[in-house]
Amino acid sequence: MKFIKTPVKGMCDMLPSDMRLRERILEMIKETYARYGFLEIETPVMEHIENLTSRQGGDNEKLIFKVMKRGADLKRALEAENGELADNGLRYDLTVPLARYYANNKEKLPTPFKALQIGNVWRADNPQKGRFRQFTQCDIDILGDETNLAEIELIGATADMLLKIFAQVGIQDFTIHVNDRQILKGAALQAGFQEEDIPSVLISLDKYDKIGLSGIRGELLENGYEAQAVDAYLAMYEEISRNITCGEFCKNIEEKYLDPRVVEGLEEILACVKPMGGVKVVFDPTLVRGMGYYTGPVFEVSIDGYGFSIAGGGRYDKMIGRFSGADVCASGFSIGFERILTILKDHMGEGLKVPENSVAYLIDKKAPLEKRMEAFAQAKELRETGVIVSVQPMRKNMKRQVELLEAEGYREFRKVYGD
Amino acid sequence: MKFIKTPVKGMCDMLPSDMRLRERILEMIKETYARYGFLEIETPVMEHIENLTSRQGGDNEKLIFKVMKRGADLKRALEAENGELADNGLRYDLTVPLARYYANNKEKLPTPFKALQIGNVWRADNPQKGRFRQFTQCDIDILGDETNLAEIELIGATADMLLKIFAQVGIQDFTIHVNDRQILKGAALQAGFQEEDIPSVLISLDKYDKIGLSGIRGELLENGYEAQAVDAYLAMYEEISRNITCGEFCKNIEEKYLDPRVVEGLEEILACVKPMGGVKVVFDPTLVRGMGYYTGPVFEVSIDGYGFSIAGGGRYDKMIGRFSGADVCASGFSIGFERILTILKDHMGEGLKVPENSVAYLIDKKAPLEKRMEAFAQAKELRETGVIVSVQPMRKNMKRQVELLEAEGYREFRKVYGD
Repeated sequence: MKFIKTPVKGMCDMLPSDMRLRERILEMIKETYARYGFLEIETPVMEHIENLTSRQGGDNEKLIFKVMKRGADLKRALEAENGELADNGLRYDLTVPLARYYANNKEKLPTPFKALQIGNVWRADNPQKGRFRQFTQCDIDILGDETNLAEIELIGATADMLLKIFAQVGIQDFTIHVNDRQILKGAALQAGFQEEDIPSVLISLDKYDKIGLSGIRGELLENGYEAQAVDAYLAMYEEISRNITCGEFCKNIEEKYLDPRVVEGLEEILACVKPMGGVKVVFDPTLVRGMGYYTGPVFEVSIDGYGFSIAGGGRYDKMIGRFSGADVCASGFSIGFERILTILKDHMGEGLKVPENSVAYLIDKKAPLEKRMEAFAQAKELRETGVIVSVQPMRKNMKRQVELLEAEGYREFRKVYGD
Repeated sequence: MKFIKTPVKGMCDMLPSDMRLRERILEMIKETYARYGFLEIETPVMEHIENLTSRQGGDNEKLIFKVMKRGADLKRALEAENGELADNGLRYDLTVPLARYYANNKEKLPTPFKALQIGNVWRADNPQKGRFRQFTQCDIDILGDETNLAEIELIGATADMLLKIFAQVGIQDFTIHVNDRQILKGAALQAGFQEEDIPSVLISLDKYDKIGLSGIRGELLENGYEAQAVDAYLAMYEEISRNITCGEFCKNIEEKYLDPRVVEGLEEILACVKPMGGVKVVFDPTLVRGMGYYTGPVFEVSIDGYGFSIAGGGRYDKMIGRFSGADVCASGFSIGFERILTILKDHMGEGLKVPENSVAYLIDKKAPLEKRMEAFAQAKELRETGVIVSVQPMRKNMKRQVELLEAEGYREFRKVYGD
């Protein structure tokens, strides 16, 4: 019989030490977000193929794992010319399921609805180091709050959670970058770009960390924009190295290009979030966030020494409505769970062991019933106090057995012999 | 655009109150099993289609959700006569993945390997009340322990866990039934049945709860077995109503049909498990457990007033080897997670609310920045003490807003006005 030992390409078996770390971090995430009033929900891993291919998912729609129709449906589809063979697909993100969930259950949910979703998603991407075909997403979203209280809650909760998680390994150097899509737009219009140029201009600005202002300048000119607009635009960004405030950055953008309430709103977010523990929250006028669906504040978390962001999000007031028919304002923050685990493991080695007070009972084959019963009774007492106890047969090569248990983290061994 | 609001057929959206109950029970399960030295593992939801269709899964193999090949592979399969269109499938249980996982990671795992797996499985079954196409399994297995210490750990841990969970709603009336496949076999041989009759005889005995001894008698005779064997067989089971011990039941079975060490081993299990808290553990000579792969002790948990078992398992020494090539002895206990939730909800109503000390801040649109900052600072302090706090905009219809929050469980409302 053909049996394949390895997992499906691009997917992982989780070893116990990795699982222990995952579980501890998941618990911290759930506990922290719960304290901010986020309600955990869960949706099926499968979604209707129609929902997954509605062009909201961008390039991810090319990476769907499709689930085949079954029985008579499949037979009909195979017989038809160009019949659709799949009726479902595995979700590639948690946003499409959230939109469907909200449309389906709205009457049973509070307003605003503060949702926490933790779940696996699947993308048939080319596997690379650190990128998998099954991975965990962890999203918080606030639906139905049109005010910036939503952003303050999202950023505050995420900062709180990251501070707690990274405190375990002594990391404090992470920064939450905040910007607003309206400010990005206003700056571009003020410089002289046209409304329709903005998406392309922002794609260039988004490369600031990699190519700097001179690189952006080259790219914009190459794309055929007038030197006057390009120069005016880059002049606005020249001062950002000295950490200017949102108000300072926006002071020369005319009201017709940028509603002053947007600036005020963002400064309120920064003012309310900053006092929350030692976390750095900065206005970052170069922060773009790639996805086109953002409509207001955007945010991202960077960490010293790592070239990737560990969390990101923003307001997307038009998206849920496009799915569900009725407009629902929404703002969300998504953390890269596997990325956070990678950073933790860089600092703590290979996952977590059992606690040091864990006890292993090794029972000799010849141990009489009374001694066995006594061992199990003792084990039960210890377990009731929260200690991890494993009862197992004593091996001929007990030295090796103990070594392996020590590698798991066990420190105390109680041996029950035949006499 | 076509958008479907309902989940995929036979699958569920989890509402927040249901999720809270699920999460609390999952935590109790994980915590209890961890104390018995079980190590949590996780495997991908997808498995190679070859592994899923190796005939170990019985009828479940007919219910596989198949995942389509992609790109050039799919094109080739579509062009070929009778080409296989799927390369993967969603797992229908956690045992096939466990066998693959053990074969793949054996060198990194301790012996015995005590595994805890909690995960969703998928079956394209016809949806019925209480039966879903995506549901959660929760399995503990001990691989590589050939002694009955494995069964004592499995039963003891499961009893401990169930006692804790059901104590929340005042249920104590559950019973763990224990038997051994070797005893079932010995009794049938002693009565005069042939080795090859045993599977069919056990299918009849398995109906004891539904049709009783007279029903079994009728079925066995109808299947053509000799009246002498049938009468001798049923005579053995006539005394069970007075809760006879394993030793009493087996005392007339000859050694050539039943190794006395099997009886001794099962009595040891009962002796070691019984003292573990108020749980009832009984020898039940009618317990069969349907699956053909069991080789030794089998166990099942019943609960007063419910016609279904809530957990079941047994020793299956030959199965992992059939998958992985090398024989590995194994014993496992699987709990029906959704069934346990059903029983809990019967006794406690509709899931769990937020704790009664939870606080909601309602912020008026006109509230000035200082008041907002003060509210967020207070919220932060409360959250640090473990209290759930939600900050949200005050609605025009505040009465309705408060009612909805009260339905969630909130009891304290702090209103922040504009003046």
